[in-house]
Amino acid sequence: MSKEKLILISNDDGVEAKGIKALIEAASHFGKVVVVAPADAMSGMSHAITIKTPLRAKKIRNTPELEIYRAHGTPVDCVKLAMNQLLEGRVPDLVLSGINHGSNASSSVVYSGTMAAAMEGCINQIPSAGFSLLSYDPDADFSAAVKVAEQVIEKMLAKGLPEGICLNVNIPSVPYSDIKGIRVCRQAKGLWKEEFVKRVDPNQGEYYWLTGYYLNLEEDSEDTDEHALANNFASIVPIQIDFTAYQAMNEISGWDL
Amino acid sequence: MSKEKLILISNDDGVEAKGIKALIEAASHFGKVVVVAPADAMSGMSHAITIKTPLRAKKIRNTPELEIYRAHGTPVDCVKLAMNQLLEGRVPDLVLSGINHGSNASSSVVYSGTMAAAMEGCINQIPSAGFSLLSYDPDADFSAAVKVAEQVIEKMLAKGLPEGICLNVNIPSVPYSDIKGIRVCRQAKGLWKEEFVKRVDPNQGEYYWLTGYYLNLEEDSEDTDEHALANNFASIVPIQIDFTAYQAMNEISGWDL
Repeated sequence: MSKEKLILISNDDGVEAKGIKALIEAASHFGKVVVVAPADAMSGMSHAITIKTPLRAKKIRNTPELEIYRAHGTPVDCVKLAMNQLLEGRVPDLVLSGINHGSNASSSVVYSGTMAAAMEGCINQIPSAGFSLLSYDPDADFSAAVKVAEQVIEKMLAKGLPEGICLNVNIPSVPYSDIKGIRVCRQAKGLWKEEFVKRVDPNQGEYYWLTGYYLNLEEDSEDTDEHALANNFASIVPIQIDFTAYQAMNEISGWDL
Repeated sequence: MSKEKLILISNDDGVEAKGIKALIEAASHFGKVVVVAPADAMSGMSHAITIKTPLRAKKIRNTPELEIYRAHGTPVDCVKLAMNQLLEGRVPDLVLSGINHGSNASSSVVYSGTMAAAMEGCINQIPSAGFSLLSYDPDADFSAAVKVAEQVIEKMLAKGLPEGICLNVNIPSVPYSDIKGIRVCRQAKGLWKEEFVKRVDPNQGEYYWLTGYYLNLEEDSEDTDEHALANNFASIVPIQIDFTAYQAMNEISGWDL
Protein backbone atom coordinates (compact mmCIF):
# COMPACT_ATOMS: atom_id res chain seq x y z
CA MET A 1 0.00 0.00 0.00
CA SER A 2 1.33 3.40 -0.93
CA LYS A 3 2.28 5.93 1.70
CA GLU A 4 -0.50 8.35 2.52
CA LYS A 5 -0.28 11.63 0.62
CA LEU A 6 0.63 14.75 2.55
CA ILE A 7 -0.89 18.04 1.38
CA LEU A 8 0.28 21.40 2.70
CA ILE A 9 -2.25 24.23 2.49
CA SER A 10 -1.87 27.97 2.99
CA ASN A 11 -3.72 31.09 1.85
CA ASP A 12 -3.69 34.85 2.13
CA ASP A 13 -7.16 35.49 3.53
CA GLY A 14 -6.22 34.02 6.89
CA VAL A 15 -6.73 30.72 8.64
CA GLU A 16 -10.36 31.51 9.51
CA ALA A 17 -11.47 32.34 5.96
CA LYS A 18 -14.27 30.35 4.39
CA GLY A 19 -12.13 29.77 1.32
CA ILE A 20 -9.39 27.84 3.13
CA LYS A 21 -12.01 25.62 4.71
CA ALA A 22 -13.28 24.87 1.20
CA LEU A 23 -9.76 23.93 0.07
CA ILE A 24 -9.26 21.70 3.12
CA GLU A 25 -12.53 19.98 2.20
CA ALA A 26 -11.34 19.41 -1.37
CA ALA A 27 -7.87 18.20 -0.36
CA SER A 28 -8.98 15.93 2.47
CA HIS A 29 -10.22 13.32 -0.03
CA PHE A 30 -6.64 12.76 -1.13
CA GLY A 31 -4.56 12.48 2.02
CA LYS A 32 -3.49 14.07 5.25
CA VAL A 33 -3.78 17.86 5.28
CA VAL A 34 -1.49 20.23 7.17
CA VAL A 35 -2.59 23.86 7.14
CA VAL A 36 -0.16 26.66 7.94
CA ALA A 37 -1.94 29.93 7.28
CA PRO A 38 -1.75 33.55 8.37
CA ALA A 39 -3.61 34.63 11.48
CA ASP A 40 -4.86 37.69 9.64
CA ALA A 41 -5.83 38.49 6.08
CA MET A 42 -2.71 39.07 3.96
CA SER A 43 -4.17 40.01 0.59
CA GLY A 44 -1.76 41.91 -1.62
CA MET A 45 1.27 40.60 0.25
CA SER A 46 2.66 39.02 -2.93
CA HIS A 47 5.90 37.14 -2.28
CA ALA A 48 6.77 39.22 0.80
CA ILE A 49 8.81 37.55 3.51
CA THR A 50 9.33 38.63 7.10
CA ILE A 51 12.92 39.45 7.92
CA LYS A 52 12.84 42.12 10.60
CA THR A 53 10.42 40.52 13.06
CA PRO A 54 10.29 36.91 14.22
CA LEU A 55 7.53 34.51 13.22
CA ARG A 56 5.19 32.71 15.58
CA ALA A 57 2.96 29.74 14.86
CA LYS A 58 0.43 27.98 17.05
CA LYS A 59 -1.08 24.55 16.41
CA ILE A 60 -4.83 25.05 16.80
CA ARG A 61 -5.99 21.64 15.56
CA ASN A 62 -4.32 18.26 15.69
CA THR A 63 -6.11 15.16 14.44
CA PRO A 64 -4.67 12.26 12.42
CA GLU A 65 -6.26 13.69 9.27
CA LEU A 66 -5.78 17.40 9.82
CA GLU A 67 -3.29 19.68 11.53
CA ILE A 68 -3.85 23.43 11.51
CA TYR A 69 -1.30 26.06 12.44
CA ARG A 70 -2.13 29.74 12.80
CA ALA A 71 1.00 31.71 11.93
CA HIS A 72 1.89 35.36 12.33
CA GLY A 73 3.53 35.89 8.97
CA THR A 74 2.93 36.25 5.25
CA PRO A 75 1.70 33.40 3.03
CA VAL A 76 5.27 32.75 1.85
CA ASP A 77 6.49 32.78 5.46
CA CYS A 78 3.87 30.10 6.18
CA VAL A 79 5.10 27.82 3.41
CA LYS A 80 8.74 28.29 4.40
CA LEU A 81 8.03 27.73 8.10
CA ALA A 82 6.00 24.63 7.31
CA MET A 83 8.59 23.08 5.02
CA ASN A 84 11.52 23.85 7.28
CA GLN A 85 10.07 23.42 10.77
CA LEU A 86 6.45 22.52 11.30
CA LEU A 87 6.34 19.48 9.00
CA GLU A 88 9.29 18.07 10.95
CA GLY A 89 11.05 16.63 7.94
CA ARG A 90 7.97 15.34 6.13
CA VAL A 91 7.97 16.49 2.49
CA PRO A 92 4.53 17.41 1.16
CA ASP A 93 3.26 15.79 -2.04
CA LEU A 94 1.43 19.00 -2.92
CA VAL A 95 1.41 22.63 -1.82
CA LEU A 96 -2.02 24.21 -2.33
CA SER A 97 -3.11 27.77 -1.63
CA GLY A 98 -6.51 29.41 -1.34
CA ILE A 99 -9.28 29.23 -2.13
CA ASN A 100 -8.85 32.96 -2.46
CA HIS A 101 -11.79 35.31 -2.01
CA GLY A 102 -11.42 37.17 -5.32
CA SER A 103 -9.82 36.73 -8.73
CA ASN A 104 -6.12 36.17 -9.24
CA ALA A 105 -6.40 36.04 -13.00
CA SER A 106 -4.33 38.15 -15.41
CA SER A 107 -1.70 40.40 -13.85
CA SER A 108 -3.19 39.97 -10.38
CA VAL A 109 -0.89 36.95 -10.14
CA VAL A 110 1.95 39.41 -9.52
CA TYR A 111 0.35 40.90 -6.39
CA SER A 112 -1.31 37.79 -5.03
CA GLY A 113 -0.28 36.28 -1.71
CA THR A 114 -2.25 33.19 -2.67
CA MET A 115 -0.20 32.61 -5.80
CA ALA A 116 3.02 33.52 -4.00
CA ALA A 117 2.45 30.64 -1.58
CA ALA A 118 1.98 28.29 -4.54
CA MET A 119 5.05 29.69 -6.27
CA GLU A 120 7.05 29.17 -3.08
CA GLY A 121 6.03 25.52 -3.11
CA CYS A 122 7.13 25.36 -6.75
CA ILE A 123 10.51 26.98 -5.97
CA ASN A 124 10.93 24.20 -3.42
CA GLN A 125 10.21 21.65 -6.16
CA ILE A 126 6.80 20.50 -4.89
CA PRO A 127 3.82 20.36 -7.32
CA SER A 128 1.83 23.42 -6.32
CA ALA A 129 -1.33 25.32 -7.22
CA GLY A 130 -3.26 28.38 -6.13
CA PHE A 131 -7.06 28.51 -6.31
CA SER A 132 -9.23 31.61 -6.45
CA LEU A 133 -12.97 32.19 -6.61
CA LEU A 134 -14.25 35.25 -8.45
CA SER A 135 -16.05 36.65 -5.42
CA TYR A 136 -14.70 38.90 -2.69
CA ASP A 137 -17.69 38.06 -0.45
CA PRO A 138 -16.43 36.61 2.87
CA ASP A 139 -19.50 34.37 2.82
CA ALA A 140 -19.23 33.36 -0.86
CA ASP A 141 -20.52 29.99 -2.07
CA PHE A 142 -17.42 27.82 -2.60
CA SER A 143 -19.27 24.63 -3.56
CA ALA A 144 -18.46 24.83 -7.28
CA ALA A 145 -14.87 25.84 -6.54
CA VAL A 146 -14.46 22.79 -4.29
CA LYS A 147 -15.50 20.50 -7.15
CA VAL A 148 -13.10 22.15 -9.59
CA ALA A 149 -10.30 22.00 -7.02
CA GLU A 150 -10.92 18.28 -6.46
CA GLN A 151 -10.54 17.59 -10.17
CA VAL A 152 -7.33 19.59 -10.40
CA ILE A 153 -5.84 18.03 -7.25
CA GLU A 154 -6.60 14.52 -8.52
CA LYS A 155 -4.78 15.24 -11.79
CA MET A 156 -1.84 16.91 -10.04
CA LEU A 157 -1.34 13.81 -7.90
CA ALA A 158 -1.70 11.49 -10.88
CA LYS A 159 0.35 13.41 -13.43
CA GLY A 160 2.69 15.69 -11.47
CA LEU A 161 3.79 19.01 -12.90
CA PRO A 162 6.75 19.98 -15.07
CA GLU A 163 9.68 21.33 -13.05
CA GLY A 164 9.49 25.01 -12.24
CA ILE A 165 5.80 25.28 -13.10
CA CYS A 166 2.77 25.70 -10.84
CA LEU A 167 -0.89 26.34 -11.55
CA ASN A 168 -3.02 29.47 -11.21
CA VAL A 169 -6.61 28.20 -11.04
CA ASN A 170 -9.50 30.67 -11.10
CA ILE A 171 -13.13 29.70 -10.77
CA PRO A 172 -16.23 31.72 -11.75
CA SER A 173 -18.62 32.49 -8.91
CA VAL A 174 -21.59 30.55 -10.29
CA PRO A 175 -23.32 27.26 -9.46
CA TYR A 176 -21.32 24.20 -10.56
CA SER A 177 -23.98 23.33 -13.14
CA ASP A 178 -23.24 26.62 -14.88
CA ILE A 179 -19.49 26.02 -15.18
CA LYS A 180 -18.86 25.01 -18.77
CA GLY A 181 -15.51 23.34 -18.20
CA ILE A 182 -11.91 23.92 -17.20
CA ARG A 183 -9.74 25.67 -19.75
CA VAL A 184 -5.94 25.90 -19.91
CA CYS A 185 -5.19 29.53 -20.78
CA ARG A 186 -2.54 32.17 -20.92
CA GLN A 187 -2.43 35.11 -18.53
CA ALA A 188 -4.41 38.03 -20.00
CA LYS A 189 -2.57 41.30 -20.51
CA GLY A 190 -4.07 43.80 -18.10
CA LEU A 191 -3.35 46.09 -15.23
CA TRP A 192 -4.89 47.73 -12.21
CA LYS A 193 -5.71 51.36 -12.84
CA GLU A 194 -5.10 53.05 -9.54
CA GLU A 195 -7.44 55.64 -8.21
CA PHE A 196 -5.92 56.87 -4.99
CA VAL A 197 -8.35 58.65 -2.71
CA LYS A 198 -6.62 61.57 -1.01
CA ARG A 199 -7.85 62.65 2.42
CA VAL A 200 -6.77 65.00 5.20
CA ASP A 201 -6.58 63.75 8.79
CA PRO A 202 -7.78 65.79 11.79
CA ASN A 203 -4.21 67.07 12.23
CA GLN A 204 -4.07 68.37 8.62
CA GLY A 205 -1.86 65.52 7.43
CA GLU A 206 -2.58 64.23 3.91
CA TYR A 207 -2.98 60.52 3.32
CA TYR A 208 -3.98 58.25 0.44
CA TRP A 209 -6.13 55.14 0.18
CA LEU A 210 -5.18 52.74 -2.60
CA THR A 211 -8.16 51.75 -4.72
CA GLY A 212 -8.68 51.02 -8.37
CA TYR A 213 -10.17 48.79 -11.01
CA TYR A 214 -8.87 46.08 -13.33
CA LEU A 215 -8.37 47.00 -16.96
CA ASN A 216 -8.21 44.16 -19.50
CA LEU A 217 -5.87 45.31 -22.28
CA GLU A 218 -6.94 42.58 -24.70
CA GLU A 219 -10.65 42.06 -24.38
CA ASP A 220 -10.89 40.58 -27.86
CA SER A 221 -8.46 37.72 -27.25
CA GLU A 222 -10.12 34.36 -26.72
CA ASP A 223 -7.21 32.36 -25.30
CA THR A 224 -6.83 34.27 -22.03
CA ASP A 225 -7.88 33.46 -18.49
CA GLU A 226 -10.07 36.58 -18.39
CA HIS A 227 -11.95 35.44 -21.49
CA ALA A 228 -12.47 31.93 -20.14
CA LEU A 229 -13.76 33.25 -16.82
CA ALA A 230 -16.07 35.76 -18.49
CA ASN A 231 -17.60 32.82 -20.33
CA ASN A 232 -18.07 30.70 -17.20
CA PHE A 233 -15.08 28.43 -17.70
CA ALA A 234 -12.68 27.81 -14.84
CA SER A 235 -9.20 28.83 -15.96
CA ILE A 236 -5.82 27.20 -15.39
CA VAL A 237 -2.72 29.21 -16.25
CA PRO A 238 0.55 27.31 -15.89
CA ILE A 239 2.92 29.76 -14.18
CA GLN A 240 6.71 29.64 -14.35
CA ILE A 241 9.10 30.76 -11.66
CA ASP A 242 11.78 31.46 -14.24
CA PHE A 243 10.91 35.05 -15.17
CA THR A 244 13.54 35.26 -17.95
CA ALA A 245 12.17 36.75 -21.17
CA TYR A 246 14.17 34.44 -23.44
CA GLN A 247 12.67 36.00 -26.57
CA ALA A 248 14.20 39.37 -25.63
CA MET A 249 17.72 38.18 -24.93
CA ASN A 250 18.96 38.64 -28.49
CA GLU A 251 17.59 42.16 -28.74
CA ILE A 252 19.16 43.29 -25.48
CA SER A 253 22.42 41.53 -26.36
CA GLY A 254 22.44 43.65 -29.51
CA TRP A 255 22.77 46.80 -27.41
CA ASP A 256 26.54 46.31 -27.39
CA LEU A 257 27.01 47.16 -23.76
CA MET B 1 14.95 70.66 -28.64
CA SER B 2 13.39 67.53 -27.22
CA LYS B 3 11.43 67.61 -23.99
CA GLU B 4 13.53 66.87 -20.94
CA LYS B 5 13.41 63.24 -19.85
CA LEU B 6 11.64 62.39 -16.60
CA ILE B 7 13.01 59.49 -14.57
CA LEU B 8 11.13 58.00 -11.62
CA ILE B 9 13.26 56.22 -9.02
CA SER B 10 12.32 54.00 -6.10
CA ASN B 11 14.01 51.27 -4.07
CA ASP B 12 13.45 48.89 -1.19
CA ASP B 13 16.30 49.89 1.11
CA GLY B 14 14.66 53.21 1.93
CA VAL B 15 15.06 56.79 0.78
CA GLU B 16 18.18 57.33 2.91
CA ALA B 17 20.12 54.34 1.56
CA LYS B 18 23.46 54.91 -0.10
CA GLY B 19 22.32 52.82 -3.07
CA ILE B 20 19.45 55.10 -4.06
CA LYS B 21 21.78 58.08 -3.93
CA ALA B 22 24.05 56.21 -6.36
CA LEU B 23 21.12 55.60 -8.72
CA ILE B 24 20.08 59.27 -8.53
CA GLU B 25 23.64 60.18 -9.47
CA ALA B 26 23.57 57.85 -12.46
CA ALA B 27 20.12 58.97 -13.64
CA SER B 28 20.67 62.70 -13.19
CA HIS B 29 22.86 62.81 -16.31
CA PHE B 30 19.82 61.97 -18.42
CA GLY B 31 17.01 64.19 -17.17
CA LYS B 32 14.91 65.29 -14.26
CA VAL B 33 14.72 62.77 -11.43
CA VAL B 34 11.73 62.24 -9.15
CA VAL B 35 12.35 59.87 -6.24
CA VAL B 36 9.47 58.25 -4.37
CA ALA B 37 10.96 55.76 -1.95
CA PRO B 38 10.04 54.06 1.31
CA ALA B 39 10.83 55.80 4.58
CA ASP B 40 12.17 52.53 5.97
CA ALA B 41 13.98 49.55 4.54
CA MET B 42 11.52 47.24 2.75
CA SER B 43 13.72 44.34 1.68
CA GLY B 44 11.81 41.16 0.97
CA MET B 45 8.55 43.01 0.38
CA SER B 46 8.28 41.63 -3.16
CA HIS B 47 5.23 43.00 -4.98
CA ALA B 48 3.31 43.70 -1.77
CA ILE B 49 0.81 46.55 -1.80
CA THR B 50 -0.79 48.34 1.13
CA ILE B 51 -4.54 47.91 1.27
CA LYS B 52 -5.53 48.05 4.91
CA THR B 53 -3.71 51.21 5.96
CA PRO B 54 -3.46 54.52 4.13
CA LEU B 55 -0.27 55.78 2.53
CA ARG B 56 1.53 58.98 3.38
CA ALA B 57 4.22 60.75 1.39
CA LYS B 58 6.24 63.84 2.20
CA LYS B 59 8.26 65.91 -0.27
CA ILE B 60 11.67 66.32 1.36
CA ARG B 61 13.53 67.89 -1.56
CA ASN B 62 12.31 70.08 -4.39
CA THR B 63 14.72 71.51 -6.94
CA PRO B 64 14.26 71.86 -10.71
CA GLU B 65 16.47 68.80 -11.23
CA LEU B 66 15.43 66.60 -8.34
CA GLU B 67 12.31 65.98 -6.29
CA ILE B 68 12.42 63.47 -3.43
CA TYR B 69 9.39 62.05 -1.64
CA ARG B 70 9.64 59.89 1.48
CA ALA B 71 6.65 57.55 1.49
CA HIS B 72 5.26 55.24 4.13
CA GLY B 73 4.56 52.25 1.94
CA THR B 74 6.11 49.39 -0.01
CA PRO B 75 8.23 49.88 -3.14
CA VAL B 76 5.23 49.04 -5.34
CA ASP B 77 3.07 51.48 -3.36
CA CYS B 78 5.68 54.13 -4.11
CA VAL B 79 5.55 53.55 -7.86
CA LYS B 80 1.75 53.49 -7.88
CA LEU B 81 1.47 56.63 -5.75
CA ALA B 82 4.02 58.42 -7.94
CA MET B 83 2.36 57.51 -11.21
CA ASN B 84 -1.15 58.25 -10.03
CA GLN B 85 -0.69 61.25 -7.72
CA LEU B 86 2.73 62.69 -7.04
CA LEU B 87 3.84 63.10 -10.67
CA GLU B 88 0.65 65.11 -11.25
CA GLY B 89 -0.02 63.71 -14.69
CA ARG B 90 3.57 63.69 -15.92
CA VAL B 91 4.44 60.27 -17.41
CA PRO B 92 7.98 59.10 -16.65
CA ASP B 93 10.26 58.04 -19.50
CA LEU B 94 11.87 55.45 -17.25
CA VAL B 95 11.16 53.76 -13.92
CA LEU B 96 14.37 52.73 -12.16
CA SER B 97 14.79 50.95 -8.85
CA GLY B 98 17.75 50.45 -6.54
CA ILE B 99 20.63 50.35 -6.43
CA ASN B 100 19.86 47.50 -4.06
CA HIS B 101 22.27 46.61 -1.27
CA GLY B 102 22.61 42.91 -2.13
CA SER B 103 22.08 40.54 -5.06
CA ASN B 104 18.74 40.09 -6.78
CA ALA B 105 20.06 37.50 -9.20
CA SER B 106 18.50 34.08 -9.77
CA SER B 107 15.28 33.34 -7.88
CA SER B 108 15.81 36.33 -5.58
CA VAL B 109 13.92 38.27 -8.24
CA VAL B 110 10.74 36.70 -6.85
CA TYR B 111 11.21 38.15 -3.34
CA SER B 112 12.81 41.43 -4.27
CA GLY B 113 11.08 44.73 -3.53
CA THR B 114 13.61 46.39 -5.83
CA MET B 115 12.58 44.28 -8.80
CA ALA B 116 8.90 44.57 -7.89
CA ALA B 117 9.11 48.35 -8.27
CA ALA B 118 10.68 47.88 -11.71
CA MET B 119 8.05 45.30 -12.66
CA GLU B 120 5.32 47.70 -11.55
CA GLY B 121 6.75 50.30 -13.92
CA CYS B 122 6.71 47.65 -16.65
CA ILE B 123 3.08 46.69 -15.92
CA ASN B 124 2.32 50.37 -16.42
CA GLN B 125 4.07 50.22 -19.80
CA ILE B 126 7.10 52.35 -18.88
CA PRO B 127 10.62 51.05 -19.72
CA SER B 128 11.91 49.91 -16.33
CA ALA B 129 14.92 48.35 -14.65
CA GLY B 130 16.09 47.31 -11.21
CA PHE B 131 19.76 47.55 -10.22
CA SER B 132 21.50 45.60 -7.46
CA LEU B 133 25.04 45.55 -6.12
CA LEU B 134 26.40 42.30 -4.73
CA SER B 135 27.12 43.75 -1.31
CA TYR B 136 24.82 44.02 1.70
CA ASP B 137 27.13 46.59 3.31
CA PRO B 138 25.18 49.81 4.04
CA ASP B 139 28.39 51.69 3.22
CA ALA B 140 29.27 49.67 0.10
CA ASP B 141 31.25 51.26 -2.76
CA PHE B 142 28.70 51.97 -5.53
CA SER B 143 31.10 53.69 -7.92
CA ALA B 144 31.33 50.76 -10.36
CA ALA B 145 27.58 50.17 -10.14
CA VAL B 146 26.94 53.81 -11.03
CA LYS B 147 29.00 53.44 -14.21
CA VAL B 148 27.19 50.27 -15.22
CA ALA B 149 23.82 51.87 -14.47
CA GLU B 150 24.70 54.89 -16.62
CA GLN B 151 25.45 52.63 -19.58
CA VAL B 152 22.20 50.71 -19.17
CA ILE B 153 20.11 53.87 -18.70
CA GLU B 154 21.61 55.43 -21.83
CA LYS B 155 20.69 52.35 -23.89
CA MET B 156 17.19 52.12 -22.38
CA LEU B 157 16.49 55.72 -23.40
CA ALA B 158 17.96 55.20 -26.87
CA LYS B 159 16.47 51.80 -27.66
CA GLY B 160 13.42 51.38 -25.42
CA LEU B 161 12.37 47.95 -24.23
CA PRO B 162 10.02 45.36 -25.72
CA GLU B 163 6.51 45.55 -24.27
CA GLY B 164 6.03 43.64 -21.04
CA ILE B 165 9.76 43.27 -20.38
CA CYS B 166 11.97 45.00 -17.81
CA LEU B 167 15.59 44.49 -16.79
CA ASN B 168 17.14 42.87 -13.73
CA VAL B 169 20.67 44.29 -13.56
CA ASN B 170 23.15 42.91 -11.01
CA ILE B 171 26.64 44.26 -10.52
CA PRO B 172 29.62 42.57 -8.83
CA SER B 173 31.03 44.38 -5.81
CA VAL B 174 34.47 45.07 -7.29
CA PRO B 175 36.28 48.13 -8.66
CA TYR B 176 35.05 49.17 -12.11
CA SER B 177 38.40 48.25 -13.65
CA ASP B 178 37.79 44.64 -12.57
CA ILE B 179 34.35 44.38 -14.23
CA LYS B 180 34.88 42.38 -17.41
CA GLY B 181 31.71 43.53 -19.17
CA ILE B 182 27.93 43.41 -19.11
CA ARG B 183 26.37 40.10 -20.06
CA VAL B 184 22.75 39.38 -21.03
CA CYS B 185 21.85 36.17 -19.17
CA ARG B 186 19.03 33.94 -18.09
CA GLN B 187 17.92 33.65 -14.48
CA ALA B 188 19.86 30.85 -12.76
CA LYS B 189 17.84 28.04 -11.22
CA GLY B 190 18.32 28.25 -7.48
CA LEU B 191 16.55 28.67 -4.19
CA TRP B 192 16.98 29.93 -0.68
CA LYS B 193 17.51 27.10 1.79
CA GLU B 194 15.79 28.25 4.92
CA GLU B 195 17.33 27.70 8.28
CA PHE B 196 14.84 29.02 10.79
CA VAL B 197 16.31 29.74 14.19
CA LYS B 198 13.84 28.76 16.91
CA ARG B 199 13.93 30.66 20.20
CA VAL B 200 11.87 30.93 23.35
CA ASP B 201 10.85 34.34 24.69
CA PRO B 202 10.94 35.25 28.41
CA ASN B 203 7.25 34.26 28.62
CA GLN B 204 7.96 30.77 27.24
CA GLY B 205 6.52 31.60 23.80
CA GLU B 206 8.32 30.01 20.84
CA TYR B 207 9.31 32.15 17.89
CA TYR B 208 11.33 31.75 14.70
CA TRP B 209 13.83 33.93 12.88
CA LEU B 210 13.99 33.46 9.12
CA THR B 211 17.53 32.97 7.90
CA GLY B 212 19.13 30.89 5.16
CA TYR B 213 21.56 30.72 2.30
CA TYR B 214 21.28 30.73 -1.47
CA LEU B 215 21.71 27.41 -3.25
CA ASN B 216 22.61 27.50 -6.96
CA LEU B 217 20.99 24.43 -8.54
CA GLU B 218 23.02 24.67 -11.75
CA GLU B 219 26.53 25.70 -10.90
CA ASP B 220 27.90 24.23 -14.13
CA SER B 221 25.75 26.33 -16.47
CA GLU B 222 27.61 29.20 -18.11
CA ASP B 223 24.67 31.23 -19.44
CA THR B 224 23.17 32.25 -16.09
CA ASP B 225 23.30 35.49 -14.14
CA GLU B 226 24.99 33.70 -11.23
CA HIS B 227 27.77 32.47 -13.51
CA ALA B 228 28.31 35.92 -15.03
CA LEU B 229 28.47 37.54 -11.62
CA ALA B 230 30.84 34.90 -10.22
CA ASN B 231 33.16 35.79 -13.11
CA ASN B 232 33.01 39.55 -12.53
CA PHE B 233 30.57 40.38 -15.30
CA ALA B 234 27.56 42.56 -14.59
CA SER B 235 24.42 40.62 -15.52
CA ILE B 236 21.24 41.74 -17.26
CA VAL B 237 18.28 39.36 -17.21
CA PRO B 238 15.28 40.53 -19.24
CA ILE B 239 12.25 39.78 -17.04
CA GLN B 240 8.71 39.29 -18.28
CA ILE B 241 5.55 40.19 -16.41
CA ASP B 242 3.62 37.51 -18.27
CA PHE B 243 4.27 34.50 -16.04
CA THR B 244 2.50 32.04 -18.37
CA ALA B 245 4.51 28.87 -18.98
CA TYR B 246 3.51 28.57 -22.63
CA GLN B 247 5.62 25.45 -23.08
CA ALA B 248 3.50 23.63 -20.48
CA MET B 249 0.07 24.51 -21.86
CA ASN B 250 -0.18 21.49 -24.14
CA GLU B 251 0.77 19.08 -21.39
CA ILE B 252 -1.76 20.46 -18.93
CA SER B 253 -4.42 20.64 -21.65
CA GLY B 254 -3.84 16.91 -22.13
CA TRP B 255 -5.11 16.24 -18.61
CA ASP B 256 -8.66 16.14 -19.99
CA LEU B 257 -10.22 18.11 -17.19
